[in-house]
Amino acid sequence: MSEIRFDVIGIGNAIVDILVQTETSLLEDLGLAKGAMSLVDAKAAQSIYEKVGPATECSGGSAANTIAGLASFGGRGAFVGKVRDDQLGNVFSHDIRALGVHFETAPASDGAATATSLVLVTPDADRTMLTYLGACIELGPGDINADDIADAQVTYMEGYLWDPPAAKEAFLTAAGIAHENGRDVSLSLSDPFCVDRHREDFVDLVANHVDILFANEDEIISLYQVDDFDKALQAVRGQCRIAALTRGDKGSVVLAGDEVHVIDAEPIDTVVDTTGAGDAYAGGFLFGHTQGRGLSDSARLGNIAAAEIISHLGARPATSLKDLANARLGATA
Amino acid sequence: MSEIRFDVIGIGNAIVDILVQTETSLLEDLGLAKGAMSLVDAKAAQSIYEKVGPATECSGGSAANTIAGLASFGGRGAFVGKVRDDQLGNVFSHDIRALGVHFETAPASDGAATATSLVLVTPDADRTMLTYLGACIELGPGDINADDIADAQVTYMEGYLWDPPAAKEAFLTAAGIAHENGRDVSLSLSDPFCVDRHREDFVDLVANHVDILFANEDEIISLYQVDDFDKALQAVRGQCRIAALTRGDKGSVVLAGDEVHVIDAEPIDTVVDTTGAGDAYAGGFLFGHTQGRGLSDSARLGNIAAAEIISHLGARPATSLKDLANARLGATA
Repeated sequence: MSEIRFDVIGIGNAIVDILVQTETSLLEDLGLAKGAMSLVDAKAAQSIYEKVGPATECSGGSAANTIAGLASFGGRGAFVGKVRDDQLGNVFSHDIRALGVHFETAPASDGAATATSLVLVTPDADRTMLTYLGACIELGPGDINADDIADAQVTYMEGYLWDPPAAKEAFLTAAGIAHENGRDVSLSLSDPFCVDRHREDFVDLVANHVDILFANEDEIISLYQVDDFDKALQAVRGQCRIAALTRGDKGSVVLAGDEVHVIDAEPIDTVVDTTGAGDAYAGGFLFGHTQGRGLSDSARLGNIAAAEIISHLGARPATSLKDLANARLGATA
Repeated sequence: MSEIRFDVIGIGNAIVDILVQTETSLLEDLGLAKGAMSLVDAKAAQSIYEKVGPATECSGGSAANTIAGLASFGGRGAFVGKVRDDQLGNVFSHDIRALGVHFETAPASDGAATATSLVLVTPDADRTMLTYLGACIELGPGDINADDIADAQVTYMEGYLWDPPAAKEAFLTAAGIAHENGRDVSLSLSDPFCVDRHREDFVDLVANHVDILFANEDEIISLYQVDDFDKALQAVRGQCRIAALTRGDKGSVVLAGDEVHVIDAEPIDTVVDTTGAGDAYAGGFLFGHTQGRGLSDSARLGNIAAAEIISHLGARPATSLKDLANARLGATA
């Protein structure tokens, strides 16, 4: 085995979030499915943008948020994703590198602009997303650096990669390299609608390629087309080595072989914006896991990260997760 | 006189702020003057950006923030400023129009990018700014729409317009049109360092062209090169019709002929980021003034706006100032 340089390398869509706090009625006026992530083209993205209130911008992207969370705990992260060489690409690249994350995917020098996601946050802290994939559709197997994958304990990928056509190939290439090198492959199901779009592929992936699965309650229920969480839990048991299932304010359930852990959510005063809660959980869990912590402690770190993320607008940590973890759980690094 | 379409038209640098919360020690490491706004070129801007932590982006610009504040109170605002037709220009244009502000300055289609200001916010809530003027240097007299100026009760301009060369001409052109139409001209001194750069011009402007002056304590002391606030107050009396002087947590002092009002600051729990406090004050004051409210009430509206702005990161209102004003001062519109 080669030397480990990264705890986790993430592969995902490189996106800048455009955050708007808005009334629920606007979603109805615009005919948008509340709570979902919808894919839109550049024209539709601009048209809807012009109908919403003032925004703030913050780097996002599901797997990128996870790696940002891992880095904020003090983990060694790398990220693979495609931006264009434009202003928002510069924003995305700066923000992830500023956390100490290795990010060297070549930006596209022509074609579509850096991806954006218009994130409409309603007073109930729910988010409805309109994603323009832009330059993300250019990500392909050629962007996978075999040495970087081989040198990472875990290769983590978002289900959203099944949306841009060539990214799926990049995913499978990376998973192959990881396994050839005795490393773990991890997948987040991303979104119940994304699971709907790619269910057969995801069921196969989980059974045959994934070592560590992340999913929330809606996603795992959708994956196995069952009625409730417990049925989904029974369905996923034995399908992959570890399954970490998040349940919002009910905390999370972690399965591994015969082990089952049920970990309560962290207390939180006010939920402002749930965007990125699952991403942050995966970052905390993978940080703990790659540090050799047990499943229960790793889940607790995931819950701590999720609680921080949902207490403010935006899907990246606003404070040091390492300091938070040290305060709540004892020294982490 | 033509029909009044706007309460206030603002002319200023059209800037997107890049907000970074940082330790004070970083300013020393980078050799930056704490609390100041420094002008930097594109290369220096990028070089310093690469040395700071993850950021969020939010529309800014001094006069633009003032007009955003006015609009949030329910005032009719217009803005004149130059962006490029790039991603951050789109962000700036969206955010100001989303508040209902009339913004029709043609964006530059080539040349420098939309202006950015790297705003480094230290734990004491002070901000140090590095501004890349970018497309703002293209603003000139040709961007002044005489009808828009003629139809605004007040033409409001930031002292920072004295930095890009052609913008000064735009300022003087607009001031001339406003006065020809019996409207008021208002100036904010922007920054004590800006006053240092352009003191003679500003003394002349205040004495001969400005009806309503906004300045903070440091700026008015710098303008008249005196030792303390009271001396500056005596120096500015009679120089222009109204002078509204802000003093941070000491509130504000408003002079108009023989009238002198001393208005306490609004109470606030935690000061997070003082960026835009003066801009917001001017927005609240001018809203009150153009609604026919007295000087004391107008200053109170200014203080309410400033208190809202400094309670969060970013220089634009995060909540409706109209609702805040109604709650604290009775119905405003």
